[in-house]
Amino acid sequence: MKEPDNLNALFARALVDELCAAGAREAVISPGSRSTPLVLACAEEKRMKLRVVLDERSAAFVALGAAKATGRPALALATSGTAGAHFFPAILEAEAARVPLVALTADRPLELHGFGAPQTMDQQHLFGTHVRFFADLGAPEPLEARLRHLRAVAALACSRALGPPRGPVHLNVPYREPLSGADGALPALRDRPAPRIATPRLSADDAALDEAAREISARPRGVIVCGPRDADDDLPDAVRALSRSTGYPILAEAASQVRFRVPEAVAHYDAILKHRPSAEALRPEAVIRFGAGLTSKTLQQWLDASGAYTVLVSDDSALFDPAHAASLVLAGDAVATAFALADRVVRPAGASLPFADADQRARSGLEAAFAREEEPSEPAVARELLAALPAGSQLFVSSSMPVRDVDAWAGRAAAVRVLANRGVNGIDGIVASALGAALATSRRTAVLLGDLALLHDLGGLVAAARLGAELTLVVVDNDGGGIFSFLPIASQTPRFEELFGTPHGLDLARAAALAGARLHSPRTLPELRAALRETGGLHFVHVRSDRARNVERHRALEAAVASALGSAP
Amino acid sequence: MKEPDNLNALFARALVDELCAAGAREAVISPGSRSTPLVLACAEEKRMKLRVVLDERSAAFVALGAAKATGRPALALATSGTAGAHFFPAILEAEAARVPLVALTADRPLELHGFGAPQTMDQQHLFGTHVRFFADLGAPEPLEARLRHLRAVAALACSRALGPPRGPVHLNVPYREPLSGADGALPALRDRPAPRIATPRLSADDAALDEAAREISARPRGVIVCGPRDADDDLPDAVRALSRSTGYPILAEAASQVRFRVPEAVAHYDAILKHRPSAEALRPEAVIRFGAGLTSKTLQQWLDASGAYTVLVSDDSALFDPAHAASLVLAGDAVATAFALADRVVRPAGASLPFADADQRARSGLEAAFAREEEPSEPAVARELLAALPAGSQLFVSSSMPVRDVDAWAGRAAAVRVLANRGVNGIDGIVASALGAALATSRRTAVLLGDLALLHDLGGLVAAARLGAELTLVVVDNDGGGIFSFLPIASQTPRFEELFGTPHGLDLARAAALAGARLHSPRTLPELRAALRETGGLHFVHVRSDRARNVERHRALEAAVASALGSAP
Repeated sequence: MKEPDNLNALFARALVDELCAAGAREAVISPGSRSTPLVLACAEEKRMKLRVVLDERSAAFVALGAAKATGRPALALATSGTAGAHFFPAILEAEAARVPLVALTADRPLELHGFGAPQTMDQQHLFGTHVRFFADLGAPEPLEARLRHLRAVAALACSRALGPPRGPVHLNVPYREPLSGADGALPALRDRPAPRIATPRLSADDAALDEAAREISARPRGVIVCGPRDADDDLPDAVRALSRSTGYPILAEAASQVRFRVPEAVAHYDAILKHRPSAEALRPEAVIRFGAGLTSKTLQQWLDASGAYTVLVSDDSALFDPAHAASLVLAGDAVATAFALADRVVRPAGASLPFADADQRARSGLEAAFAREEEPSEPAVARELLAALPAGSQLFVSSSMPVRDVDAWAGRAAAVRVLANRGVNGIDGIVASALGAALATSRRTAVLLGDLALLHDLGGLVAAARLGAELTLVVVDNDGGGIFSFLPIASQTPRFEELFGTPHGLDLARAAALAGARLHSPRTLPELRAALRETGGLHFVHVRSDRARNVERHRALEAAVASALGSAP
Repeated sequence: MKEPDNLNALFARALVDELCAAGAREAVISPGSRSTPLVLACAEEKRMKLRVVLDERSAAFVALGAAKATGRPALALATSGTAGAHFFPAILEAEAARVPLVALTADRPLELHGFGAPQTMDQQHLFGTHVRFFADLGAPEPLEARLRHLRAVAALACSRALGPPRGPVHLNVPYREPLSGADGALPALRDRPAPRIATPRLSADDAALDEAAREISARPRGVIVCGPRDADDDLPDAVRALSRSTGYPILAEAASQVRFRVPEAVAHYDAILKHRPSAEALRPEAVIRFGAGLTSKTLQQWLDASGAYTVLVSDDSALFDPAHAASLVLAGDAVATAFALADRVVRPAGASLPFADADQRARSGLEAAFAREEEPSEPAVARELLAALPAGSQLFVSSSMPVRDVDAWAGRAAAVRVLANRGVNGIDGIVASALGAALATSRRTAVLLGDLALLHDLGGLVAAARLGAELTLVVVDNDGGGIFSFLPIASQTPRFEELFGTPHGLDLARAAALAGARLHSPRTLPELRAALRETGGLHFVHVRSDRARNVERHRALEAAVASALGSAP
């Protein structure tokens, strides 16, 4: 389908062509008028998959999820006015989590600004310092130089989105009327592609690599710690090589893409390190850190307190080191840096930290404790979900409790890709993010989230329904904010429930009904397992829980691990 | 209830006390941890009404609605991270529509910034140039000077919010742990109120008033035109006085607060001016404009094309004049300026424009046309809703079609206060805005909106359910974006339905069920009237419509008016 020619269409097509050349394949649009040229250009572009999402906030999270899952730039496209402002939460998450989200906001032309024209506001630098790149593309003019500039800016924007560091970019795109249809005045403009900008990677400094290798070679008691990292690359192999050459155990969190692809990775460090004698006995003298900020506060605090020689490997030179505990920052692609370190290290003399033994004991203790469960507790839901997902599938976990539960209690599982919005750790846009990841890949996708996160992103649920997505939502419903029950405030004010617990009192099965999702309401573990096995279409697995009982259950599991660890190792 | 003392609590209480002193009475909070001191301070402050809304986007719109309906500063209070970014759409609407919305974002202290601490991002100037005032309040320190400064900044922020011009302000409020509970180290700090800052009004220049009066006194064929304006003040009386002294008819749109309080106001100008012979015959030689940008494009274009001597009265010096058609801008409080002009004008000699006659003919034509309706059309829903609301009640109308339908077809009604988000004309946050207006006043409140606006603000619906609000939602459901059917694009692409019409295919009755609202599904006018009569609790009046038929219906009503006007006046 080719739309009638006009100047807007010509410029919009060139823009979309250039974004595709830079790797974009997913465009998420919302209904609007001023964005018409861009929408039509996306619709006629064969390389682009176009998704219509009614709520711009959810639309941006769909694009975020797609970009996160694929590593390619993904477009969120809004009309003029407040529409683009709904992108802001996803933009901030993309900024912090290094996701190549390309925000496109249609705008009215210059001459309509500043004097009260309807639906018109200042969209320049709408997201302030929070994007890697901003440009206003100006309303199209019949000038070859303008067309070339437009293409070059689009290529540059994608290059900035792809980093390093990766992140969100914003293009503001004004159009004059007529927005569509032939305008009969289109001159012949020569139109050719912009220079392609190849994405570089950071390469760690050689002298610093030597220094790190020297320090590590002198320390037998070390750990390799992998935080959240989206890339679907060779880091598992690189980390295994590093572990073999150093003798260091690998502590890899669920969203590191290492945990479930490295069988020997330590899975129960959170519970192990909550056991004081173990935490003390396992204290490291060297730490090699990969990935972003750690989900386990216990692990982070244990590392910070260790006083160990710490090498922080940063793919893009971002520092995830709030305690300023690192000794050396190696800014460089994690895979290449890990292999380079592995090559340079001479295996230190002396005994390694016996994490494998502790992990085995913790596993046995937990298996026994979980075997005694009858109703699905929140930790058990996380565990069962990981157990139900086949290798190659994809799990999006919400921040707050789900990401912690998966990290702490899931144990081992098949090679599932685990994604989470751990940039700013919001619970917002989680259904939409998972939807974007599901749509942009052919992977089976599930999402684990709480009731508040679901109610916060009903727009994402509506989008999943409208787009006929294949997605399993596992909603742990404890009627409010479960994480607050773990904080001191829980016992400090008589208005805790009203102000922090915030029960919603709604029947979430009705949200499933609104979305036309297949509802499962398991009350037993076998029912839960059966529900998790189902695929095809939109599934809504509604697990009711209780916040107070959940705190108890966590404490009991921690006690089971402590007991299994005894005074060992 | 008084919370345990600590430094955070002391500073938070002083802040909330100062905001109350400046007139704030409504605080909308969302669950979070970092915001704990502020939440507790709001909860213990007797003057403050505290509402818990789970979704920060809807929360900010609830505060916007409250501030809009009361004219007082209203607070939206978020925890750290992306939470505050969800305020952005409401902030932008408040900026453009001049609403005193006070955004408070909790933050982590300085020492946790920049090195990957969880849920931490740069919140400085989060809303860029779009707020009237920004300040970072810094984490509390045991210094009297800091406490005095905090209070003074709070007073200043509210003063900036109250203008002129009114608008949103943003305070970023970092807290160190412990966030709550006694910290045992609270020094005795002298704490006294900040200077109260009295809100000024602009007073129009005397010489300019004389000039305007002179020009008007020379022109008998003039109109007074009132655009959207929230203030519940004496503008209706002032405009009537001006109309009497000039002989000019009053063309007042529904959201002007003049239309339904001035019986002689012309109600059918939109349809009258679509009738070319009337538009030509009624062409003015003078225009006096009040309020913000006009909803009727027909009216705006007719004014712009008139070449009339045009006085623009601007309460706060904002210019709503995209065609640069004004001859003179009188920046000054509208009420005082209208009375001042009325005093100075000498009634021009010659015949006034016969708008009253045209309005009467249009009314008769429409009454006959509506009397032939059996099913409720979209215009009829707007008309019946206004007819059903008693004087003193409140109607929030969504942008896009509802505000146009109310403006064009509602005709005369009781003295209903009509509010709309006409700053940037978004359809976002409309349920939440109406909810805020309902909660903050004792007025009976209804909201008229479309299906897309409802799906865009399911968070507002959830909030209405949780807060047990008394609110009637009238949802015109044409399964998609009705306004696009009025645009050229409707016939320009075969993918119109997919990309612009965007049918959702959802049964909105299930949204009502999720919210536990009382559902009405009227199929006839009597059923509609019965549904609109019901009060108490949350009512959901679900009226199904058809987009194509709606366009036809509008055309038919315009034709009925044209026929009633004939070749007259």
